[in-house]
Amino acid sequence: MSEAAFTLPGYRIDLGVDEKLRLDCGVSLGPFPLAYQTYGELNADKSNAILVCHALTGDQFVGETHPITGKPGWWDLMVGPGKPLDTERYFVICANVLGGCLGTVGPKETDPTTGKPYGLSFPVITIADMVRAQRMLIDHLGIDQLFAVLGGSMGAMQVLDWAARYPERVFAAVPIAGAARHSSQNIAFHEVGRQAIMADPDWHGGDYLLHGSRPHRGLAVARMAAHITYLSERALHRKFGRNLQDREALTYGFDADFQVESYLRHQGITFVERFDANSYLYITRAMDYFDLAAEFGSVAGAFEGTQVRFCLISFTSDWLFPTSESRTVVHALNAVAADVSFVEIESDKGHDAFLLDEPEFREVLSGFLNGCAEHRGLVGR
Amino acid sequence: MSEAAFTLPGYRIDLGVDEKLRLDCGVSLGPFPLAYQTYGELNADKSNAILVCHALTGDQFVGETHPITGKPGWWDLMVGPGKPLDTERYFVICANVLGGCLGTVGPKETDPTTGKPYGLSFPVITIADMVRAQRMLIDHLGIDQLFAVLGGSMGAMQVLDWAARYPERVFAAVPIAGAARHSSQNIAFHEVGRQAIMADPDWHGGDYLLHGSRPHRGLAVARMAAHITYLSERALHRKFGRNLQDREALTYGFDADFQVESYLRHQGITFVERFDANSYLYITRAMDYFDLAAEFGSVAGAFEGTQVRFCLISFTSDWLFPTSESRTVVHALNAVAADVSFVEIESDKGHDAFLLDEPEFREVLSGFLNGCAEHRGLVGR
Repeated sequence: MSEAAFTLPGYRIDLGVDEKLRLDCGVSLGPFPLAYQTYGELNADKSNAILVCHALTGDQFVGETHPITGKPGWWDLMVGPGKPLDTERYFVICANVLGGCLGTVGPKETDPTTGKPYGLSFPVITIADMVRAQRMLIDHLGIDQLFAVLGGSMGAMQVLDWAARYPERVFAAVPIAGAARHSSQNIAFHEVGRQAIMADPDWHGGDYLLHGSRPHRGLAVARMAAHITYLSERALHRKFGRNLQDREALTYGFDADFQVESYLRHQGITFVERFDANSYLYITRAMDYFDLAAEFGSVAGAFEGTQVRFCLISFTSDWLFPTSESRTVVHALNAVAADVSFVEIESDKGHDAFLLDEPEFREVLSGFLNGCAEHRGLVGR
Repeated sequence: MSEAAFTLPGYRIDLGVDEKLRLDCGVSLGPFPLAYQTYGELNADKSNAILVCHALTGDQFVGETHPITGKPGWWDLMVGPGKPLDTERYFVICANVLGGCLGTVGPKETDPTTGKPYGLSFPVITIADMVRAQRMLIDHLGIDQLFAVLGGSMGAMQVLDWAARYPERVFAAVPIAGAARHSSQNIAFHEVGRQAIMADPDWHGGDYLLHGSRPHRGLAVARMAAHITYLSERALHRKFGRNLQDREALTYGFDADFQVESYLRHQGITFVERFDANSYLYITRAMDYFDLAAEFGSVAGAFEGTQVRFCLISFTSDWLFPTSESRTVVHALNAVAADVSFVEIESDKGHDAFLLDEPEFREVLSGFLNGCAEHRGLVGR
């Protein structure tokens, strides 16, 4: 937990020192480390802060070369000078979520009471818990109100939870490719991934770090299954079709004859190098548990009297978080007369479209943020 | 391979005795056992035979209580006296596919040259190979022309291959919820299942029978992932939603809190009791390899000059073999002026609809078969 041991870029602070974080499961957590990264500068009245919430396997390295993979940050397209989240105008914050594996406390971190990795003794956390931890960070940074909270997929769940739980702390909210609750089918896909991990003997009941092993095979299978859900059938067809991988003809064997097989295997293999299997269990569980209506009585009930400006965005070919899920939220917001825009972007790239270069998406995001910045009185570049 | 060792109901014969079966991969197979079951009686001129082709995890027990699971046959709704495949009128045949695990030669059978189970030394087979073996059975039964060939999913692939390969042997063909080639997304889902099996240390490179083990965990994960694709999002939502399993509240753990998790786990656990993991590898591979256009130059080319009467059926909510796939075949058949009907059935039950009680589906099937029976001069009941 010490600052010295954390060699990744960005910051790592201890939260829950004076007052512990009370989790939904009943456990009180603290002190605990939370890792985050920032881009741009916080202005004098601290009114230009944008919190970006990352998705299941994302992290705080949203707008820079990733320190482990060496690839561009997951939202490099969106965060930077002159980009929609213009770092010459905004102060962009992104924190590794609670339960994550890149510096924030999670199952692979050391439990100070035992001196060993938490493993499955780590408490099950929720989206609300992630948001509570982020609020502690925002308090720590002395920011009364975030100019905007943005995120896609699980990030969108956090955005919705932020707006529902701390409406006075949020000026504008942009939930992208999200939902007010995790669907039955999505829980099912997550359960397949978890079972794949737990079926791997190298998982050792979650204590693999104590055994010097890691359930690479199970985690790779989980990633492969999930990865299919991030793409559209059409995107897969256009990208790979039935093309063969570096061969002229079928081999009549179980090697990766088809490009799509080779691609999926690669997704699995590279993922295990940067992600912790237990974190995958915990974070998928948090998504499964997410259900705004269950906590607030109804989705509309979560936003009663809200002053937050909303912009919801979905993508036509996203079958994991389809437009209908965003529409449910929009209807609820309309029912409480909230200030809400909704845009469905035409794209055949599936759920992953929110991570990709979709010009209309960039324009919508820029336009909405610029409009809000004017209202908020933020000076342009 | 001996008759005595086969204690399941139905028949088991040795094929490829005089002439071996030349497989697409180049291997010649024979003699080899093929297990099949029949219902009803073959008429004097052998003109009332219907061949039913089963799907990936189906088998020959189409119209009777399954001898292993004790559940109704997989098409019990369709096969029997007074049902669409009326056994008082038709002689219904269903054979366990090549590569299967219920009596027909497959990776779990004994290789006569080594005295050990084939395992991965079993040759990789194709849909065409399955059909070639079935043709040997039909020859053996002395049937010149099948009155009809029917099947759903992988069964539909076999039906299309029958009509393309042996058009003079088929009077009518009913490919249900099928496709002329396996899509990129479907190959991807199969690859996830195969990787789950092969990641299980109990798989032992395919030699698990020699090790006295079986890769139950990997096969269960494969089944769970596949099972999601057999249902529609809406069917899952209607059936389970976010309902909890035998509990009042979330447990904040990794047990099956949600009914959909419990259901999926059950699907995995029961499947491994009746299915062989290597068969799963081989049969999924055969489906992946299926591509009529690759073999015949084009889908239309596969049916040039055909006299076969076709009836294609798809289901609106089937996202594994969507209507567009059937439509591609219909367009090809139209291009060669074939006799073709096409019905898309309104159903929210997903791909599995072809196994379920869908009244419109039953009516379409009955109507088409009755019409063909009149043309063929088959006497009614």
